[in-house]
Amino acid sequence: MNIRIGILGYGNLGRGVECAIRQNPDMELAAVFTRRDPKSVDILTPDVPVCPISQVEEWKDKIDVMILCGGSATDLPKQTPMYAKLFNVVDSFDTHARIPEHFSNVDASAKEGGKLGIISVGWDPGMFSLNRMYANAILPDGNDYTFWGKGVSQGHSDAVRRIEGVKDARQYTIPIESALEAVRNGENPELTTREKHLRECFVVLEDGADAAKVEETIKTMPNYFADYDTTVHFISAEEMKANHSGIPHGGFVLRSGKTGWNGETNHLIEYSLKLESNPEFTASVIVAYARAAYRLSQEGQTGCRTVFDIAPAYLSLLSGEELRKTML
Amino acid sequence: MNIRIGILGYGNLGRGVECAIRQNPDMELAAVFTRRDPKSVDILTPDVPVCPISQVEEWKDKIDVMILCGGSATDLPKQTPMYAKLFNVVDSFDTHARIPEHFSNVDASAKEGGKLGIISVGWDPGMFSLNRMYANAILPDGNDYTFWGKGVSQGHSDAVRRIEGVKDARQYTIPIESALEAVRNGENPELTTREKHLRECFVVLEDGADAAKVEETIKTMPNYFADYDTTVHFISAEEMKANHSGIPHGGFVLRSGKTGWNGETNHLIEYSLKLESNPEFTASVIVAYARAAYRLSQEGQTGCRTVFDIAPAYLSLLSGEELRKTML
Repeated sequence: MNIRIGILGYGNLGRGVECAIRQNPDMELAAVFTRRDPKSVDILTPDVPVCPISQVEEWKDKIDVMILCGGSATDLPKQTPMYAKLFNVVDSFDTHARIPEHFSNVDASAKEGGKLGIISVGWDPGMFSLNRMYANAILPDGNDYTFWGKGVSQGHSDAVRRIEGVKDARQYTIPIESALEAVRNGENPELTTREKHLRECFVVLEDGADAAKVEETIKTMPNYFADYDTTVHFISAEEMKANHSGIPHGGFVLRSGKTGWNGETNHLIEYSLKLESNPEFTASVIVAYARAAYRLSQEGQTGCRTVFDIAPAYLSLLSGEELRKTML
Repeated sequence: MNIRIGILGYGNLGRGVECAIRQNPDMELAAVFTRRDPKSVDILTPDVPVCPISQVEEWKDKIDVMILCGGSATDLPKQTPMYAKLFNVVDSFDTHARIPEHFSNVDASAKEGGKLGIISVGWDPGMFSLNRMYANAILPDGNDYTFWGKGVSQGHSDAVRRIEGVKDARQYTIPIESALEAVRNGENPELTTREKHLRECFVVLEDGADAAKVEETIKTMPNYFADYDTTVHFISAEEMKANHSGIPHGGFVLRSGKTGWNGETNHLIEYSLKLESNPEFTASVIVAYARAAYRLSQEGQTGCRTVFDIAPAYLSLLSGEELRKTML
């Protein structure tokens, strides 16, 4: 029997999960749950019900893993602990500073419900975290570097959109190539915020807005832009739609480390992602971990896990024997 | 108490393990075992015994993990199953085609002895395998590419050294940049052997040897060189010593995959290593997995494992709580 997946929250991430399920022959989409009017939600998979979130409890025995696709700011801190009592769950909680607290809430709930929860799954946190951890375990003496981009930052785009006179905006985070090269060359640079990333904004103005004032407001915005070299381009709504409607992202995790009796030997470990769609890739990672959640639960395991706690083989459709034969 | 490590076989890899132990404060080197005359083996760590391999059984209760540093051709197929009856073991068995058989032999022995064995640890097999596996689980629809180098291939260097008239030789495997770029650009190329790697040989001739004949013999050697574009440089013994005494290696594992309802979105996952010393890096991976072997054994687990079977957190000196706080 296939692993029956539920999706709770149907935005870009929920749709990405729906697409990813289709690529995994051992899984099927059982139902989508939404806070909106279910009639207003068009999903892609034929013959799958879209249900109001109030009915979720009725699906307790008809869903093997519930994937929570809400936001980290307000949805997941409540939803993941709440639903971990009823379902095996996977979320993509990405507020790094609040992960310990979230872990402990989900752990308590999942244990109470006899369920298995995996939190903070995606690429950062997620695959980037894994690569930081493996690289640190292998090279204890070294330096870590993470660069993000080139990609759209939702938070920074929103910050620009809130400025008076701005109709629409898209912000790209761009790693600075010379800084990346210095790391790759083993120079172990100490990099300031400004030396690691550029910020590039594409802005559609409201009629009659003051472009110079908008640009000044962006470039001096504390936390978001003031510490970076920022460029601002004013474009038309048509150009925005034509050239900036995707949600690409990616980045680089590097560890530069030393081995040898006196640390005389240098090594570089680099992991990078180039993603045309941030939510679709995140969804693909989540779906692989949904397989792990199901299997761990089948073994009788309960409580909260992160990517650090899960043996890689649990993610794969292949058996241990097949993995050893084809991938080792 | 520290994890007490034994090293069996003291060549480049054994010495790398010795250096790596020094970088991990929860470990200590208990003893080195050798088939040579122990008096002829100079190790780096003060006050650690070098013992004849015949005495290994006496150390049964004084070593937590034995790291087997022999070769894959003849040593490890015998040694790992043999010593897995007495010790938790880690090896770097790298004959890909024979891994299933080796796994099954070690599994039976380790279970018989109530011990835990981890085989095929290093970077390929090892970290490259892990990255292939994770990337395949995340992007089920895609293509895999592995490039090796720039680095020294021991097997190919040996093959050149066996040619009549050759006094010394070093062979570098070099990935072809344009092929790598085609993969990175999402072109999903089908690459022949010749299109992926170049082979570059540095050769010191015996006095009076026929250079043209040696070059011809190298370039037409089946399996090793005939399918590649190979360049041969004749150099002096002094130049060999000055410029080619290191054992660098590395490479790239890439997966180019598609997501979206109709596979319309492209992604690239890339993992790469740039290693100044192949054996020292391999040793560093092995030592991290020795920590895992110890912990799994402490939990009462027995039998054979590979990198696929081991949750990443087992490799790290940090607790789950610290990992979530600092690396997730």
